[in-house]
Amino acid sequence: MREAYYEQVENINADLVEVTRLVGSAMNRATQALLDADLKLAEAVIDFDAKVDLLTASIDERCFELIALQAPVATDLRVLLGAMRISSSLERMGDLAEHVAKQARMRHPKVSVPQEVRGTFAEMGGLAEAIVSKTGSVIATKDVSLCVDIARHDEEMDRLHRELFTIVLSSSWKYGVEEAIDVTLLSRFYERYADHAVSVSKRVVTIVTGEPYVAVSLIN
Amino acid sequence: MREAYYEQVENINADLVEVTRLVGSAMNRATQALLDADLKLAEAVIDFDAKVDLLTASIDERCFELIALQAPVATDLRVLLGAMRISSSLERMGDLAEHVAKQARMRHPKVSVPQEVRGTFAEMGGLAEAIVSKTGSVIATKDVSLCVDIARHDEEMDRLHRELFTIVLSSSWKYGVEEAIDVTLLSRFYERYADHAVSVSKRVVTIVTGEPYVAVSLIN
Repeated sequence: MREAYYEQVENINADLVEVTRLVGSAMNRATQALLDADLKLAEAVIDFDAKVDLLTASIDERCFELIALQAPVATDLRVLLGAMRISSSLERMGDLAEHVAKQARMRHPKVSVPQEVRGTFAEMGGLAEAIVSKTGSVIATKDVSLCVDIARHDEEMDRLHRELFTIVLSSSWKYGVEEAIDVTLLSRFYERYADHAVSVSKRVVTIVTGEPYVAVSLIN
Repeated sequence: MREAYYEQVENINADLVEVTRLVGSAMNRATQALLDADLKLAEAVIDFDAKVDLLTASIDERCFELIALQAPVATDLRVLLGAMRISSSLERMGDLAEHVAKQARMRHPKVSVPQEVRGTFAEMGGLAEAIVSKTGSVIATKDVSLCVDIARHDEEMDRLHRELFTIVLSSSWKYGVEEAIDVTLLSRFYERYADHAVSVSKRVVTIVTGEPYVAVSLIN
């Protein structure tokens, strides 16, 4: 019985890692669709989100069943409740990738992002991929030392987010209000994506260190 | 034992209702601080968020303890897991009110919102208050018929959100890029606030109707 229990917990954990892979791929392809104004790719990312929703819903349901049937306590309970929170954050990261793809679709055939900031968005896309990939490793290995890298990536994402504000507000910004708004909202999607990754990694720390269960707030 | 258990669940529920009151008040005062460029009020709202964080963390902890000690199943378990999700959404609503207050503080002594759209933001503030107050009633009374009102408020919020886009993108917009970005981000905070309220009310429906536990996604 106990062995079967831990096998199921292990499956849930493996699926959480799989979701990090899915939402990493979604954000990477969404960034590509954005930079290339690729309608087909944007639509593929939008459709793809249903897959993320399905897998996270299945994770939630299996956590619920395990708690109901096996009445875990202490760390075992913390692991399952933590998995439900992590699944919820990852699901939201999938939504944010979808938002980026929707923005690409909305402006198609125009490229939503002016030439001057393409590099910054390419960098944000790369950072998003790096941060979610390390988040997946934290979940898989429980190696919380990776959280240092994740925090560093997040700081870098915040820096790029602020940099974009400076660019669109500078007197040399030669585009209009619409482009400025597009850049601002898109930038916020990447920044929130990174925040959620940080939140997931903090959640794993809470589980591993066994500190009292308190809400690990998303960064404001 | 059972009686004490339900008393504790009832206390958790009462505290969730109390949090809806707190985050409703926070958003109302944040809106006022925004429209009046009132620095003191903005700072009060920002400090106030710690109170929301503390109460939601306490709710989470008590849910954890009840699940660990009492091993509830079926509806009883669903209620507690639902309370944890609701607490997490409400905590995020508090953050969004804080974001509005921070925006007011950042532009002080300037008013962050141009005259032409003041009315729209006043309306969004009113809608936010209405939607969270009804969300509190749904939690308190389990009267899911109120969800119709909540959905209608949310649609109205979305309409105002779109309306603001139209205004800042129209050729008659006589302000700059900075004002347009401020309006866009602020508007998104109100829109997300309403989304979270809808998510909370859907969560109560899931608990009341006893449908299988699946992730009730936030509206994209």
